[in-house]
Amino acid sequence: MNLIEALRAALGEGAVLTNPSERAAYEQDWRGLVNNPALAVILPKSTEQVSQAVRLCAAHSVRIVPQGGNTGLVAGAVPIEGADQVILSFSRLRAVREIDVLADTITVEAGMTLAAVQQEAANANRFFPVSLGAEGTAEIGGVISTNAGGLQVLSYGNMRAQVLGLEVVLADGTLWHGLSGLRKDNTGYDLKQVFIGSEGTLGLITAATLRLHPPVASRASALVGIENLEQGLRIFSVMRHAAGPALTLCEFCTHAALALGAAHTQGGRLPFAAPAYLLLEISALEGGRDPQEMLETVLMKELEEGRALDAAIAQSERERLDFLALRENISEGELREGGAVKHDISVSLSRLAELVSAVETLVARDYPGFRPNIFGHVGDGNLHVNIRPPEGQDMAAIAARKAAITTSIETLAVSLQGSFSAEHGIGQLRLPGMVAHKSPTDLSLMRAIKHALDPAGLLNPGKTVPEV
Amino acid sequence: MNLIEALRAALGEGAVLTNPSERAAYEQDWRGLVNNPALAVILPKSTEQVSQAVRLCAAHSVRIVPQGGNTGLVAGAVPIEGADQVILSFSRLRAVREIDVLADTITVEAGMTLAAVQQEAANANRFFPVSLGAEGTAEIGGVISTNAGGLQVLSYGNMRAQVLGLEVVLADGTLWHGLSGLRKDNTGYDLKQVFIGSEGTLGLITAATLRLHPPVASRASALVGIENLEQGLRIFSVMRHAAGPALTLCEFCTHAALALGAAHTQGGRLPFAAPAYLLLEISALEGGRDPQEMLETVLMKELEEGRALDAAIAQSERERLDFLALRENISEGELREGGAVKHDISVSLSRLAELVSAVETLVARDYPGFRPNIFGHVGDGNLHVNIRPPEGQDMAAIAARKAAITTSIETLAVSLQGSFSAEHGIGQLRLPGMVAHKSPTDLSLMRAIKHALDPAGLLNPGKTVPEV
Repeated sequence: MNLIEALRAALGEGAVLTNPSERAAYEQDWRGLVNNPALAVILPKSTEQVSQAVRLCAAHSVRIVPQGGNTGLVAGAVPIEGADQVILSFSRLRAVREIDVLADTITVEAGMTLAAVQQEAANANRFFPVSLGAEGTAEIGGVISTNAGGLQVLSYGNMRAQVLGLEVVLADGTLWHGLSGLRKDNTGYDLKQVFIGSEGTLGLITAATLRLHPPVASRASALVGIENLEQGLRIFSVMRHAAGPALTLCEFCTHAALALGAAHTQGGRLPFAAPAYLLLEISALEGGRDPQEMLETVLMKELEEGRALDAAIAQSERERLDFLALRENISEGELREGGAVKHDISVSLSRLAELVSAVETLVARDYPGFRPNIFGHVGDGNLHVNIRPPEGQDMAAIAARKAAITTSIETLAVSLQGSFSAEHGIGQLRLPGMVAHKSPTDLSLMRAIKHALDPAGLLNPGKTVPEV
Repeated sequence: MNLIEALRAALGEGAVLTNPSERAAYEQDWRGLVNNPALAVILPKSTEQVSQAVRLCAAHSVRIVPQGGNTGLVAGAVPIEGADQVILSFSRLRAVREIDVLADTITVEAGMTLAAVQQEAANANRFFPVSLGAEGTAEIGGVISTNAGGLQVLSYGNMRAQVLGLEVVLADGTLWHGLSGLRKDNTGYDLKQVFIGSEGTLGLITAATLRLHPPVASRASALVGIENLEQGLRIFSVMRHAAGPALTLCEFCTHAALALGAAHTQGGRLPFAAPAYLLLEISALEGGRDPQEMLETVLMKELEEGRALDAAIAQSERERLDFLALRENISEGELREGGAVKHDISVSLSRLAELVSAVETLVARDYPGFRPNIFGHVGDGNLHVNIRPPEGQDMAAIAARKAAITTSIETLAVSLQGSFSAEHGIGQLRLPGMVAHKSPTDLSLMRAIKHALDPAGLLNPGKTVPEV
């Protein structure tokens, strides 16, 4: 029996797609940049079936490409060039196994969407804080495997901080039972940490126990005009000291970036002009201090002392969402107006202003006419430093310069002790950065761990860690 | 040149102690339960010297026992039985390398005490939240290597949550440069996670970059009388929903436990009698909501609805510290009144009441006359389930039964999907628990990682992961 027949026997006819037209949607990444064929797409519907499928693939030396919602930005969930790969989709594993409102935990299967997890939490009068643009499609197994970030990392941490336990199918098909709702467990190595963020290269996450938080009762937000990033960081620091974890959002946008967002938001307009903006949000629990009053108190002082140039506090939930839409539509605006060479950079907060100014200098010098479009999660030191083509040009026109631009920006971030991929991960597309920017010791440690857990190299080949 | 001569040449005469009287303090664990000889105690004063020393030991196939403040409870920082071990003390690496108030980070060397880190943070108008009884002696490298917990995990997380970057000397002496103040970095495996909590068996932490938090401006606390643990958990849940991360402490004590603490606190007295108690603390930032008012609002309702039997809110900082002292002196009370077989158990919050009742049943049935002494971090699901000898007996009198008691209590916790060592770790003393309670898959994953990073088994032999 060949592998396909064996998989059909184990998972059922309808769970093994080999027809090119059925495979197509799984073989191409979300951005449409990578498209490689797989032998088959398999759709197991239980952890047991995932384990069986892995055993079969291992027996046939066929490599496995795990895929969740396929919304990643680095082609981490689609095949690489080359033969002998099966895509294993988790989309049929989508049960809620348990929700425990006393322990504040939820246990879900890998294929459940992030939005569905948020909804289950809300139904139980709890809050699940990880939130991203793609949350309606992104699946929780992928969100864990990529240690996704999003808007509220500042207060709640990234996906890693939400994971209490995992169930993982290992490279030989063995099931590791690491589901646990424990807040504290120091019995040996914390194995779940190894799988979180490893992009499916060390094991396949089939289920997870996640932390839930108390529900947020009200939110207030403000758009603040600032002269420059230094001022923005000073306001952030004051706000953070006043609000602590109640400061749930602190986004920075240049005027150009936010104007682009506004131009691509229905009815969108900037409430006032300023060289740059902060978007702040304060969240309050039931019975907590009024978040709008809290924003007003701090911002009044910042205006008086001249650190803030202007400020608009959202006067209704509708207006709060309007402010957020301006920020969220920047990427859409980029896409519709010719695209951009995208980067996802982080540096220590104390070097952020230096980064932005160095980017502007670099682009003016080496890529005259190109337009830096800078915005992002300033409270986390994480900016999207995107470079738009000169006025009137699109991505096709600058294709030849794209790789050089990326190398320049990434190198700049790394030279400031920063990260060249703060939240989007490595996948296939950022692998050249791993070769260029990681030390031999970094790479040899990663390879040692990869070899220890997947000696035959069957799990998600050609991703995350460059081969020797 | 033999190893000792080579170490003296590299580190200097005074940095290599071979005289038994000089070694003695390093060879015995803090509780005085384990005492094994080392070839030498070495005291490097820089990361470079740690690296040199490891290279020399590796060349001579001599194993290394890393030691911080030697305040651990599981003999993880002292030699095992057997020859060829050198104790490497980090106590001379105690510089603050950098404090960055904009990025809210501090970078310190491994030998700095936890109390000194807290003090450095306070001097910079910041807060470092990890706090333990031994903080004046415990060194930060050890606190990270054991992923220590302490009183405020509920709000701030354990030590793992504070670590942004590490500098580590690997088993072959190579230095891994992983210091970083980045809040977000998804470039490959998050290697620091592997070293945190691995008890020095995978690498030697020489420095760390840690997260700082906004300073706490005021605290309020209350002692609440409750009928039983179920009631306590309901009050915890209400409090947590009202206060979120501002609830910085939620400790549970039976009447017997807190009375023992009171009896061993100078001027200590219980403000009222109740079958059991919760000790709650709310922290507020500058300009935040009055924490005392917040406690009053919630507790008034809990009293009205009969979930709380009685409550005393500390009316001064002095009284707040008095309440805390009652809780903190329970261990001292145990020690002075004959000792106890100690356990550090966690289960999911929804099984905590079941655990306590099962412990009481088990002790009454199998160890009549023994006195369960139960208290701890109820908000984390983590209780110290200590078993005191029968009235009038001490630990020596029950020595023959100690191992059996521990096996019973640990097995009970594990049967409820709990942990048999929630925060104290494994070291040497809890290694039998690893053999008894971990699955073959758990152990084989841990061994694979150990072998990948320390193939010759030179780092902290006989700790954490049982050998095959």
